[in-house]
Amino acid sequence: MKLTFLGTGAGLPSRQRNVSAIALDLMQEQGAIWLFDCGEATQHQILRTSIKPRKIEKIFITHLHGDHIYGLPGLLSSRSFQEGKTPVSIYGPKGIKQFISISLEISCTKLKYPLHVIEVTDNFYLDTGQFIIDAIALEHGINGFGYRIMEKNQRGALQVDKLKDYGIEPGPIYQQIKANPSTILPDGREIKREDVIGPDKQGRKIVIMGDTRNAMQFLDFVAESDLLVHEATFQSTDDQLAYQYYHSTNTEVAKLADAVDVKKLVLTHISARYQGEELKDFKKEAQVYFENTIIAEDFMEIEISQS
Amino acid sequence: MKLTFLGTGAGLPSRQRNVSAIALDLMQEQGAIWLFDCGEATQHQILRTSIKPRKIEKIFITHLHGDHIYGLPGLLSSRSFQEGKTPVSIYGPKGIKQFISISLEISCTKLKYPLHVIEVTDNFYLDTGQFIIDAIALEHGINGFGYRIMEKNQRGALQVDKLKDYGIEPGPIYQQIKANPSTILPDGREIKREDVIGPDKQGRKIVIMGDTRNAMQFLDFVAESDLLVHEATFQSTDDQLAYQYYHSTNTEVAKLADAVDVKKLVLTHISARYQGEELKDFKKEAQVYFENTIIAEDFMEIEISQS
Repeated sequence: MKLTFLGTGAGLPSRQRNVSAIALDLMQEQGAIWLFDCGEATQHQILRTSIKPRKIEKIFITHLHGDHIYGLPGLLSSRSFQEGKTPVSIYGPKGIKQFISISLEISCTKLKYPLHVIEVTDNFYLDTGQFIIDAIALEHGINGFGYRIMEKNQRGALQVDKLKDYGIEPGPIYQQIKANPSTILPDGREIKREDVIGPDKQGRKIVIMGDTRNAMQFLDFVAESDLLVHEATFQSTDDQLAYQYYHSTNTEVAKLADAVDVKKLVLTHISARYQGEELKDFKKEAQVYFENTIIAEDFMEIEISQS
Repeated sequence: MKLTFLGTGAGLPSRQRNVSAIALDLMQEQGAIWLFDCGEATQHQILRTSIKPRKIEKIFITHLHGDHIYGLPGLLSSRSFQEGKTPVSIYGPKGIKQFISISLEISCTKLKYPLHVIEVTDNFYLDTGQFIIDAIALEHGINGFGYRIMEKNQRGALQVDKLKDYGIEPGPIYQQIKANPSTILPDGREIKREDVIGPDKQGRKIVIMGDTRNAMQFLDFVAESDLLVHEATFQSTDDQLAYQYYHSTNTEVAKLADAVDVKKLVLTHISARYQGEELKDFKKEAQVYFENTIIAEDFMEIEISQS
């Protein structure tokens, strides 16, 4: 699992930061890439990475402001041009379906793959087998959602020393023991899996929030995440602007991460007003409240390892 | 008058060429920039030029394929963010109004300037005072237009030697003689402008064609243009592909330019399949038929001087 930040700016593109998009690489886990938001020129950013558009399987849209969706029609079209054949599902607030269908229709774009657009509501819940994804409504003056990606726990490792105590030598029987609650050995003995297996490997939890103000209200939703990606459009000194434009500040979000045992925090959607030294201060200020804070940059990659 | 090629590729962006957009700099003539097409990330390309989005006054769309329009919503929004206050007019085929209005509505984008969207028909004709713009229907399997920008002729220079022969010394009277068909001098003599003025300065004529096949049918429309910008998606050896996908080839267009006294030809909308040596051949092959052929590149600038 790896996140690649494709666009980390706020509102409009600059030469330093493109508008919002994040790729979640699940090639190992699901053979797929999931996108979170798709601002204009997301496909152009992808051209500068090793991401293959045909591997994009799901796109989650946090809200319908232009800097989060205007790259969708182009990405979908180019994926078709590039012989993407497998289905794509897009999840986003009400209105996303109309935007996509009108954009594709008017431009006479016929995709060569099935496209499913699912409008997200408060009780959104998706189970992909290995992952559960749910969503929470945000406070941004427009219908918007944060998404939580929860990997299911995986069965622990067989404890080889215990198996050897039972006199069972390594071989295909090991897979059988791991796969079944109970196994009858050739000599008639019954081996219960629970007796020879280690504790479950804890699934990872990533939260990717969209634009919102009053970050602290999301305590429960973000609690104990391995990685929290949260917007911080403004610095704490601009907190009135943040409130007025329905955004969050660096310190607000750092306090949120600190309050509920988040492991790592990435701040993104950074206003272009913070550059150079100011941006260093922006980071330091957040780190006063939450040490493990990173400021996203375009093309930054973050591995989320199993704990 | 200067053209800046902002995107010169076909269909989808590559690292070498963005999708279609051309800026016509009329800062000297009209204090404005006009755009022709606006593919995705046109605003990103503009960030790398000296063009100010607030100076963009008119946008002409040749047709509604995504690689020619998907940059519109973002460009319009960012122009508003950047405090563009003056009106913008967009001209394009039927459907352009719906695409723009749905994109802006769904993203809750409220522009801070008046936006006029005018759907172009076969008898399109626009007179801006200094320029006349008309359009011709193309053959691209979708409603599409080429645009012709015709500068009106400007009055010639006063012939100072002739005025001196009349005994008229330089002074404010010169402007008066130039501005009026006839002027009565203080001594009662009548001076007719036509007797003391040189020939009209010929207005410039630029033709910017959209995607089309069968280029040769546009002989009359492009005739005697100072600059013809025409798509050449394919090389002559791929002429069957060109026909199938409603595009033109390099040699077809060069023959068109040669047939009707075009002064300079720029080929654009080049398929990504032609690179390096192949692209050199692409150019040479066109030049066999029309010597003054240029292959467009992103950020290429071409001055159109008065002849």
